[in-house]
Amino acid sequence: MDCQKGLDGVVVDQTKISSTANAHLTYVGYPIEEIASATFEEVVFLLWYKQLPDQQKLKKFRQQLVNKMILPAETIRLLLYIAKEPQHPMSILRTTTSLLGTTNDVEHDEPPKILSKMLTAIAAIIRIRDNEPLIDVDPQLSVVENFLYMITGKRPSSELTRMFSTVMILHADHEFNASTFTARVVASTLSDYYSCLTAAVCALKGPLHGGANERVFEMLQKIKNQQLDPVEYIKDQLAQKRKIMGFGHRIYKSGDPRAFILKKIAQKLAVETNNQAYYQIQQQLADYMLKKYKLHPNVDYYTALIYHCIGLKKETYTMIFAACRTVGWLAHIMEQRQENILIRPSSEYVGPQNRHYKI
Amino acid sequence: MDCQKGLDGVVVDQTKISSTANAHLTYVGYPIEEIASATFEEVVFLLWYKQLPDQQKLKKFRQQLVNKMILPAETIRLLLYIAKEPQHPMSILRTTTSLLGTTNDVEHDEPPKILSKMLTAIAAIIRIRDNEPLIDVDPQLSVVENFLYMITGKRPSSELTRMFSTVMILHADHEFNASTFTARVVASTLSDYYSCLTAAVCALKGPLHGGANERVFEMLQKIKNQQLDPVEYIKDQLAQKRKIMGFGHRIYKSGDPRAFILKKIAQKLAVETNNQAYYQIQQQLADYMLKKYKLHPNVDYYTALIYHCIGLKKETYTMIFAACRTVGWLAHIMEQRQENILIRPSSEYVGPQNRHYKI
Ligand SMILES: CC(C)(COP(=O)(O)OP(=O)(O)OC[C@H]1O[C@@H](n2cnc3c(N)ncnc32)[C@H](O)[C@@H]1OP(=O)(O)O)[C@@H](O)C(=O)NCCC(=O)NCCS
Ligand SMILES: CC(C)(COP(=O)(O)OP(=O)(O)OC[C@H]1O[C@@H](n2cnc3c(N)ncnc32)[C@H](O)[C@@H]1OP(=O)(O)O)[C@@H](O)C(=O)NCCC(=O)NCCS
Repeated sequence: MDCQKGLDGVVVDQTKISSTANAHLTYVGYPIEEIASATFEEVVFLLWYKQLPDQQKLKKFRQQLVNKMILPAETIRLLLYIAKEPQHPMSILRTTTSLLGTTNDVEHDEPPKILSKMLTAIAAIIRIRDNEPLIDVDPQLSVVENFLYMITGKRPSSELTRMFSTVMILHADHEFNASTFTARVVASTLSDYYSCLTAAVCALKGPLHGGANERVFEMLQKIKNQQLDPVEYIKDQLAQKRKIMGFGHRIYKSGDPRAFILKKIAQKLAVETNNQAYYQIQQQLADYMLKKYKLHPNVDYYTALIYHCIGLKKETYTMIFAACRTVGWLAHIMEQRQENILIRPSSEYVGPQNRHYKI
Repeated sequence: MDCQKGLDGVVVDQTKISSTANAHLTYVGYPIEEIASATFEEVVFLLWYKQLPDQQKLKKFRQQLVNKMILPAETIRLLLYIAKEPQHPMSILRTTTSLLGTTNDVEHDEPPKILSKMLTAIAAIIRIRDNEPLIDVDPQLSVVENFLYMITGKRPSSELTRMFSTVMILHADHEFNASTFTARVVASTLSDYYSCLTAAVCALKGPLHGGANERVFEMLQKIKNQQLDPVEYIKDQLAQKRKIMGFGHRIYKSGDPRAFILKKIAQKLAVETNNQAYYQIQQQLADYMLKKYKLHPNVDYYTALIYHCIGLKKETYTMIFAACRTVGWLAHIMEQRQENILIRPSSEYVGPQNRHYKI
């Protein structure tokens, strides 16, 4: 029997959302290198409706999203308890995503409202865990400005907004990655939006997927604080058969196009915030991994440093990834629903045979 | 490009848990027709450890499971709020499953404790929504007896326990069904047990999967209450391009072996509880679907009537399915972890090409 373990290279569906063909990432036909300079709202519109909005449509869409960045009072009341639970913020986000789907009138929630609620909820989890008061949305600001404002309590500079928009766009979609595929499998049973998103959060949490960014920073911190030699650190990890977080990719075998863009942002922010030491460690690690193992940094590698420079705690990094990827998850859930077939594979049984139970 | 939409017949991994080869269901080599007469705890042990326990091991294992059928006080406190949320019980269960994974000391939770907590949580959701006081586990009773006791508030007869054990066993596993596959995809990112289970609940909720049992009973109720002709009802539904719930299966094209066993239980209980009218409607529907469309009843078809006869409300049916299937989900998560490869398929991009973004 032909066993396609890991589904490596197995084409499970057609898509009109994004492509990594020839290791070149495009969103609805636009190269990532170009679309990374758009505004976040433009990219959300593009991934959902397959074309860029004109100025009027964009303004309306932005206002629609911003106006919906509000949580029901009841959700906030519960969130105040749940966000304080002792486990990892991604476990809290898992509960919270599900909870967003249990208040009144959510049956008719559509992607714009769902995305806006997710962003606000993620900001709220960060604030509550930091014992900071929650921030109300500012209708004058864009989605990205509001997201940063609701996390930090400060209205961001236009430069920071610009950079963070690029980061959010780069994380917005990536065709059939593990969490998106999870969302599509759940959507294929005709389950609701919140179930699909909750399941995607569950998958993103794993260290082989979105959970890698937090672990990248953990590694950098360890090397810096204990003054380790980066190359010796890698040798030691590999000797223990551990993977080096932030390296390698199922699709990109000669470099992740997102990492090239993120590297520049990380370098710039590291200088501005006096974090060059981390950046230098990253360079040494990357050089060695490339020379010795032909492994390139992936999307999570430089993101880790970017989030640190912005002042985020490492436990929250994967939640930020989730905030961005919610855009792509929603695009894929909509697409899966359009021409749905239940996603239900087969397996090859290799256990004991012909046993009998005697009563 | 060869597109395997729905992954129909695509073998994604080997397994030692269960098999549906030749449309014959076996659990670790035991035919379902025989193992359905075992005790529930024996089958849990079998699916997890690949052999039946001897009497001593069985006794120990049962006590271990029963002793763990307790929720942390903190979980109960939150559950009292969450279970009252207005949405569907499966949405509540989604939040609850996630919540079970956020209290102190859950990092080291192993399958026996996780299964026991799930059963107790499902019983608690039913009680809380019914405004009934929660029931404490009785260490003298078996797992199935306790589960029924904690739901109904009454210690079940040995006959009911016997029948319900068979129902639970028949639902315990079914190789790579959509929710189990979801759990495996999430496990493949190396995410934690509670994330894998929460995602599985999300998939089971869908009407093409576990959500079907509730809709089967809805249909039976409608036909009975409105005194419709079952055959006319089907014709009308199919004319509207609706699927008839409880019929058809990805794997079983000439009958679901579980449905044969469940049919007998449904018939017996229908007589005992004066629900023959429903059973007769089911017979008429099944005869017509077979004759006209060669479609057979699946596992959800007779289960719906069984749960009704036991006194369960239809909104809770899919939660009972979840309670049983947690056994299989846990078996598959353990198996996936043993020789893990990230499950990450590919897609074929068919959208617009060569677009350019002008800044
Ligand atoms: C992303 C990842 C899961 C892709 O996995 P994959 O497509 O299954 O690729 P493989 O694991 O088969 O990698 C191919 C080879 O490179 C090695 N490799 C890949 N990534 C590695 C890493 N980060 N560190 C060390 N070795 C790595 C593998 O061990 C394998 O070696 P082998 O052929 O000698 O067994 C994998 O690269 C990884 O675990 N990376 C670290 C986690 C991470 O950063 N995840 C975020 C992804 S955006
Ligand atoms: C379970 C199910 C999703 C399997 O789907 P699948 O393997 O993709 O099978 P298909 O949907 O391709 O079914 C094959 C044909 O039978 C038809 N069919 C299958 N189940 C049907 C049903 N319940 N009612 C009406 N027609 C049905 C399909 O429309 C299809 O017809 P076509 O070839 O003319 O298009 C499907 O049978 C179904 O939706 N059943 C109802 C929901 C249900 O009971 N789910 C619980 C499963 S345990």
